[in-house]
Amino acid sequence: MGEDTVKVGLMGLGTVGSGVVRLIEDHQEDLYHQTGRRIAIEKVLVRDRLKKRSVPFGKGLLTDRAEDLLENREIDIVVEVMGGIEPAREYIREALLQGKHVVTANKDLMALHGAELLSVAAEKGCDVFYEASVAGGIPILRALVEGFSSDRITKMIGIVNGTTNYILTEMKRRGAPFGEVLHQAQTLGYAEADPASDVDGLDAARKMAILGTLGFRIPLSLEEVKVRGIADVTPEDVQFAEQMGYILKLVGIAQQDHGKVEVSVQPALLSGDHPLASVEGVYNAVSVYGEAVGETMFYGPGAGEMPTATAVVSDLVTVIKQMRLGVNGRGTVAPYREKQLKSPREVFAKYFLRLHVADESGVMARLTQMFAEEEVSLEKVLQLPRSREKEAEIILITHTASLHQLSRVREQLEESDVVIRIQSDYRVEGGLSS
Amino acid sequence: MGEDTVKVGLMGLGTVGSGVVRLIEDHQEDLYHQTGRRIAIEKVLVRDRLKKRSVPFGKGLLTDRAEDLLENREIDIVVEVMGGIEPAREYIREALLQGKHVVTANKDLMALHGAELLSVAAEKGCDVFYEASVAGGIPILRALVEGFSSDRITKMIGIVNGTTNYILTEMKRRGAPFGEVLHQAQTLGYAEADPASDVDGLDAARKMAILGTLGFRIPLSLEEVKVRGIADVTPEDVQFAEQMGYILKLVGIAQQDHGKVEVSVQPALLSGDHPLASVEGVYNAVSVYGEAVGETMFYGPGAGEMPTATAVVSDLVTVIKQMRLGVNGRGTVAPYREKQLKSPREVFAKYFLRLHVADESGVMARLTQMFAEEEVSLEKVLQLPRSREKEAEIILITHTASLHQLSRVREQLEESDVVIRIQSDYRVEGGLSS
Repeated sequence: MGEDTVKVGLMGLGTVGSGVVRLIEDHQEDLYHQTGRRIAIEKVLVRDRLKKRSVPFGKGLLTDRAEDLLENREIDIVVEVMGGIEPAREYIREALLQGKHVVTANKDLMALHGAELLSVAAEKGCDVFYEASVAGGIPILRALVEGFSSDRITKMIGIVNGTTNYILTEMKRRGAPFGEVLHQAQTLGYAEADPASDVDGLDAARKMAILGTLGFRIPLSLEEVKVRGIADVTPEDVQFAEQMGYILKLVGIAQQDHGKVEVSVQPALLSGDHPLASVEGVYNAVSVYGEAVGETMFYGPGAGEMPTATAVVSDLVTVIKQMRLGVNGRGTVAPYREKQLKSPREVFAKYFLRLHVADESGVMARLTQMFAEEEVSLEKVLQLPRSREKEAEIILITHTASLHQLSRVREQLEESDVVIRIQSDYRVEGGLSS
Repeated sequence: MGEDTVKVGLMGLGTVGSGVVRLIEDHQEDLYHQTGRRIAIEKVLVRDRLKKRSVPFGKGLLTDRAEDLLENREIDIVVEVMGGIEPAREYIREALLQGKHVVTANKDLMALHGAELLSVAAEKGCDVFYEASVAGGIPILRALVEGFSSDRITKMIGIVNGTTNYILTEMKRRGAPFGEVLHQAQTLGYAEADPASDVDGLDAARKMAILGTLGFRIPLSLEEVKVRGIADVTPEDVQFAEQMGYILKLVGIAQQDHGKVEVSVQPALLSGDHPLASVEGVYNAVSVYGEAVGETMFYGPGAGEMPTATAVVSDLVTVIKQMRLGVNGRGTVAPYREKQLKSPREVFAKYFLRLHVADESGVMARLTQMFAEEEVSLEKVLQLPRSREKEAEIILITHTASLHQLSRVREQLEESDVVIRIQSDYRVEGGLSS
C-alpha cells in the first residue's frame, strides 16, 4: 500500500460495522475517484477475536486490544460503531488526543458527551463526524449544518425512532395492544430484548438533543429534552385519533420562538395531512421549518446495516477529502447562540384529552366551564356512546394553549367529582397550514 | 470595512436577487458566526438603474454595466440570479477567468453549459455552486454529492417543477381541463405568461440533467433527457388514474441498471402509496434510491423568493468557508463514470393505456391478443360504461415491459380496425415495494 492509502481503524464489528466493511470493499473504485485515496481497514476492534464472522478477515486484522488501534501511528481515522457510552467515550477521546479523526454512529455518546469530544477535536485539529447517529441513512445533519446555513430554523419535528414507529403503525393497522405488538417486534428483530430506551423515548430524545444543538446552534443537553414514551398508549387512543383525522406517532419536537427553545419527545397526534403522518413502519423522517425556506421534509430508513453504513462511509469520505486539503477540524462551527429554555407558560400547542366522566346531565357544561376558566378554548368535542354503566367517554381537542394552562385544566379535571379519570392526553400537531 | 469582509457582486435583482439581499442583511450576525466574515454586497447588476426597488440601495451600488462587477478586483464572489443563457454564461465565464467564485441559481445555464463552466472553474481554482438550480429550497445537490458519496444511486424520481404540479393538482381537485387551470395559474402568478418551458417539461428536464449528472457521476447532457409535457393531459386521465389508485404527476425519472442509464420527464401515474404521490401544489420532492441506503425522499418548496435565496446564500457560506481555508475549487469531483444510455429495449416500466374501441363482441379478446403477441402481460383491465354510440372505452395497465415492446403494441393497436383511437398512454411507477 502506497502513499495514497488512508488507514482506518474500525471499532465494532456488529451490524453497522459489517456494513461499513462491505461498503468500503464494494465501492473501492468509486471511493477512490472521489477521494483520490484507497481506504484500507488496518485493524478491527472486537470483543471476541475468535468468533466466526460473516465477513472474512485476514489474520492479525482483528484485535481485542483498543491500544492496537489507538497507538497505531499508521491509522489516520477511527470509525466507532461499537455503541454505548463507555469505553467508546474513552477510546474516541484517546483517538483524538493521538491526532486521529473520528467518525461515529453513536447517538448516546454524542448526545451526552458530544460537546466535550468536539472540543477535544477542535484543540487537536481533528474531525468528528456523526451523521449516522440521527435517522440512519438520511443526511439530515449535513442539511442542517450546510444546506440551511443561511436560514434560521424555527421548528423540527421528527419521527426518529423506527422501533416505536413500527409499534404504533402496527397498533393502528391491527388494533392490537402495545404489549402484544412489542412482543411481535422483538420476535421480528425490530425491537431489542430490553426495549426501554426505544419505548421510553430516550433514544429519540438523544437524537433530538443532537438535532436541536445543530439546528438552533445552542449547546443543548439531554436533560433539557422533556421525554414521554409510548408504553401507555392504548389501541383506543390510536383509533380515536384516527376517527378525528389524526395519526398517533412518537415525535420529537424542537421549536424556537423569540429566541427561546423547547425540545420534547412524546406520543402526539399528527394531522392526517401532516408530511410526517404517512411515515410508517421503521422509516424515519424529519420536518424542518426555516424562517426563509418554509417547510421541508427528509425521509428515509432510520436504521439498518447498510443505510447506517452509508452515513458512516460518507462521513469517512468527507474526512479523507479534508485530509487531502489539510483542513480537518477547521470547518466545524461550535454552538454560539445563547440558550434560553421556554417555561411551561411559553410552550404552546393544541391538546387531545380523553376523559371518562359521570354519565349525568350537565356534565358537558361543567367540563367546558373548567376549560373556559383557564381561557382554553375547544376546537372539537366528541361525546362517545356510553361504554360502561354510569360512565360516559368524552374526547376534547383544544385550541392552542400553553402547557401551564393545560396543567391547570388537568388539575381542575382531576379534582372534579364528575371526572372519573383522565384516560389519556396528547399534544396535537396540525397540518401544512398550521 | 476591514479585512474580515467578503465582497459580493450580485447579478440580477428580481425575486431571488431581492431575497438574497434580504437574507444577507437579516442574518448578518449568524453568517458572521459561521464564516468569520462580514458579507458586503459591493455592486448589483441591473437592467434599469433608475427603476424603483423594494430594497433600498445606497448610491452607486446599482449598475447596468457588467464590467463594474467583473473588473472590480475587490469583488471575490459573483452571485448570478439574472437567469437565461446569455449573457449569464458570458458573465460567469468572465468572472471565473478573473478568479472570482460563482454561486448561481441558473438551471438552464448549468444544464446546458455546466460542464464547460465547471472546467473553467477547476482551471482557475474557483468554486461554482448551484444548489438553488434544482428544487429551490431543498438541499438535494448536497445530499447527492456528499450525503450519498459512499453509495451507488440507482434511481431518482422527482417532482421538480412547481407550475406543472400545481396545474395537475388543481385538475385533480376540480376536474377542470388543462387550459382553464393554466390560465388560473397564470393569473395567480404560478405560471409564466409564456408557460412553454414549464408545461412542455423542459424546465424539469434541465433539473433532471443536473440531478443525473451528479447522482450517477456521468456527463449527462440535456438532449439525452427524453421529454414529454402535460399539455395533452385531460381531466379524464386524471380521474381514471385516481379510480385505479394512482395520481398523475409530471415526474422526472433518472434510472441506472447494470451501468446503463435512462433519464426522462413525462406525465406518469404514481401509485397512491408512492412517497411522491402526496406532493401537492407548488411543492417539489425528489425520491432517491441507493443500493445501500434504500429509499429516501427530500421534500420542500421548489421555488419562491426566500426558499431559493436560502439555497443561494447557503452556497455563499460554503464558498466563504472554503476561502478562509484556501481550498476553493479543489473539492469538486468531475463526472468520472462512463456514460451508456439505455436503448428502448432496456427501458422497463409498467404502462397505462386508455383506448376507444369498437363496441362489438370479441374486441377484448383481440386486444389482449395484441399484447400477448409482444409478450406484454396485463396487470389490470377496466372496461368502462359506453360513452358514445358504438364506442367502448377500455383502460389497461400492463406488467413491466420494455419501451420497445410498448411501441410494438402501440403499432398493432394503431393498425387494428377495432381500435378507434389510443386516447392516452402513461408510464406507471409503483409504490414502496416495487
